Amino acid sequence: MNTANHTLASLETPAAVIDLPRMQHNIQRMQARMDALGVRFRPHAKTSKCSAVVQAQIDAGARGITVSTLKEAAHFFADGITDILYGVGMVSTKLPQALALRRQGCDLKIVTDSVTSAEAIVAFGAAHGESFEVWIEIDTDGHRSGIRPDEAALIDVARVLHEGGARLGGVMTHAGSSYDLDTPEALAAMAEQERAGCVMAAERLRAAGLPCAVVSVGSTPTALSATRLEGVTEVRAGVYVFFDLVMRNVGVCATQDVALSVLTTVIGHQADKGWAIVDAGWMAMSRDRGTQKQKCDFGYGQVCGIDGTVLPGYVLSGANQEHGIVSREGGESAPEPDIAARLPIGTVLRILPNHACATGAQFPEYHALAQDGTLAAWSRFHGW
Amino acid sequence: MNTANHTLASLETPAAVIDLPRMQHNIQRMQARMDALGVRFRPHAKTSKCSAVVQAQIDAGARGITVSTLKEAAHFFADGITDILYGVGMVSTKLPQALALRRQGCDLKIVTDSVTSAEAIVAFGAAHGESFEVWIEIDTDGHRSGIRPDEAALIDVARVLHEGGARLGGVMTHAGSSYDLDTPEALAAMAEQERAGCVMAAERLRAAGLPCAVVSVGSTPTALSATRLEGVTEVRAGVYVFFDLVMRNVGVCATQDVALSVLTTVIGHQADKGWAIVDAGWMAMSRDRGTQKQKCDFGYGQVCGIDGTVLPGYVLSGANQEHGIVSREGGESAPEPDIAARLPIGTVLRILPNHACATGAQFPEYHALAQDGTLAAWSRFHGW
Repeated sequence: MNTANHTLASLETPAAVIDLPRMQHNIQRMQARMDALGVRFRPHAKTSKCSAVVQAQIDAGARGITVSTLKEAAHFFADGITDILYGVGMVSTKLPQALALRRQGCDLKIVTDSVTSAEAIVAFGAAHGESFEVWIEIDTDGHRSGIRPDEAALIDVARVLHEGGARLGGVMTHAGSSYDLDTPEALAAMAEQERAGCVMAAERLRAAGLPCAVVSVGSTPTALSATRLEGVTEVRAGVYVFFDLVMRNVGVCATQDVALSVLTTVIGHQADKGWAIVDAGWMAMSRDRGTQKQKCDFGYGQVCGIDGTVLPGYVLSGANQEHGIVSREGGESAPEPDIAARLPIGTVLRILPNHACATGAQFPEYHALAQDGTLAAWSRFHGW
Repeated sequence: MNTANHTLASLETPAAVIDLPRMQHNIQRMQARMDALGVRFRPHAKTSKCSAVVQAQIDAGARGITVSTLKEAAHFFADGITDILYGVGMVSTKLPQALALRRQGCDLKIVTDSVTSAEAIVAFGAAHGESFEVWIEIDTDGHRSGIRPDEAALIDVARVLHEGGARLGGVMTHAGSSYDLDTPEALAAMAEQERAGCVMAAERLRAAGLPCAVVSVGSTPTALSATRLEGVTEVRAGVYVFFDLVMRNVGVCATQDVALSVLTTVIGHQADKGWAIVDAGWMAMSRDRGTQKQKCDFGYGQVCGIDGTVLPGYVLSGANQEHGIVSREGGESAPEPDIAARLPIGTVLRILPNHACATGAQFPEYHALAQDGTLAAWSRFHGW
């Protein structure tokens, strides 16, 4: 859809809106930090799945990208990006897709954390005359996948790859448990834990006579909390490009930095309950309730006016598939009596999401809102 | 994608799979029940957003459909379905789309629950020479939208519509709070509350000399729990077509009735924690945690073998965007020591979802699995 002549008020709702000045500020902030720390920056394209957003990250100085699916890899390779890390553990059934990308000229890197998968990679590579570049996934926080830095398996996996003809590119880790923290001290400690663990893994490989050029770490909270990155060659982060309410609660952005919002229209009220009903339900916001266990629970999102100004205390307190309930926090005990006058039918609002990666995924396109109020439609892809 | 020659084991994962015998059983069960109760059945297309699924519902005897977005209305009208209820409160900015559909021959019905919106509908209708068919939304359980059956506003809204030149088609309600129940007695009582409230609203309109031909009620739990539907002309339900773990906990289906699953591959392990890591994270399952507050919490889903057989006690206990964690329930205290032998890398599993409407929405297509093992790709649409 060409929205060149649209204004926010004329868009069909619900719609996903990107505040471009905020997005550019977020991109510049992260890139400047990485530059100051002396590391390359490889943003994670899974957050936006949008060519224009990723191009803005590259334009600001990013070097290569990370992807969470091979569909993302194919999409961004078609855009001309060749340096791509597929950050989810490779399994044998996905090797034909990875091979096809490499044969087309994509400098795709894959990851593994097991002897079983490493053996599958080298066997497939040998059968097809391809030397895959493989990075070993390191578990620095017990969050999900990876080999712990001190495990014997690290050397075993590396030897299978190196001796089997793969290119052992380096090590990578993601301290995803940083999302559970909310103090600068704890975040800085987790960033150091992530760094130290990944560097230790690299040093073990090198001490064993194995190559390990890349030491890749990152999550948005640790990237923005690290004070030293000795031994690290690159950092990855994704959600920082939009930020969201979870990141606001973690403490690495302000509410005013959140660049993604869902445009919605008030379609009714339950005045005795203090509810305004809007046309953004969980299909628009996603079911992500990431702020539920954090220090400030925003329900399904923080309510703002159409101009992006926060309406303090108003949250999307409930959601059905295509209905959302806007109410004042704590409104169960003291419903707002004049909600229908405060937010009349037809009022257009913007809702800041708990989790930008999940909310963005609900939409086929973003509406990118420039400082001057002009809008551009940016398509976003979906599925695998 | 033509998957005619594919088997489940050869599909790329994650993928959404429909078990066709189960789906057909669910469709037949609901239609037989509606036939026995003497009411028309209008399924909600929001669950599948898929032409082939909705056609199966029509073929079984459904009369018209319900939709949650005007995009659904346009899609299914293009398929040849004309009797369509748009079940979300109409707002003035959506009237041009509704008008366009009616002008193309779609017998679109719209709903409202306020004088403000009713006035907008009749004013827009008068300006464009269109008499919209409008149903009034009734609130029978305090769940979200609607006018309570005994409110004065009911007659006010009806008069605005009737006297303003709209066609007052009837009343409709959705007792969505039935999802919070889990005993046959409570469900039957809610079904009766839904019926009685909506019929009372209809009788008030008729007593005021206003037309009210349609009395439309429904949710999957109440539709399957009602024992009498006197005064009701039609029932609506959506999720029954696939069912899911939330409905299993509500008590209106068995686990073996759940027709939608997510096909996934084991990509790694954390053996000391008893975890198998799979390539279905929350992007595949959705973030819906609807069983969290129910009597049996399945995490992000119940794990089954590739043949659909439940693996008792194995759930998707955690999820990142493209990583899921499979573990035994209660596995935190007693991790399964041999998880890597039990579910080796490369094992293909199927995960039953908490909420079929939310999980289906994460996929651009379903893979429909027939009794004989053949697969068909059924596209599904996305967005607004």
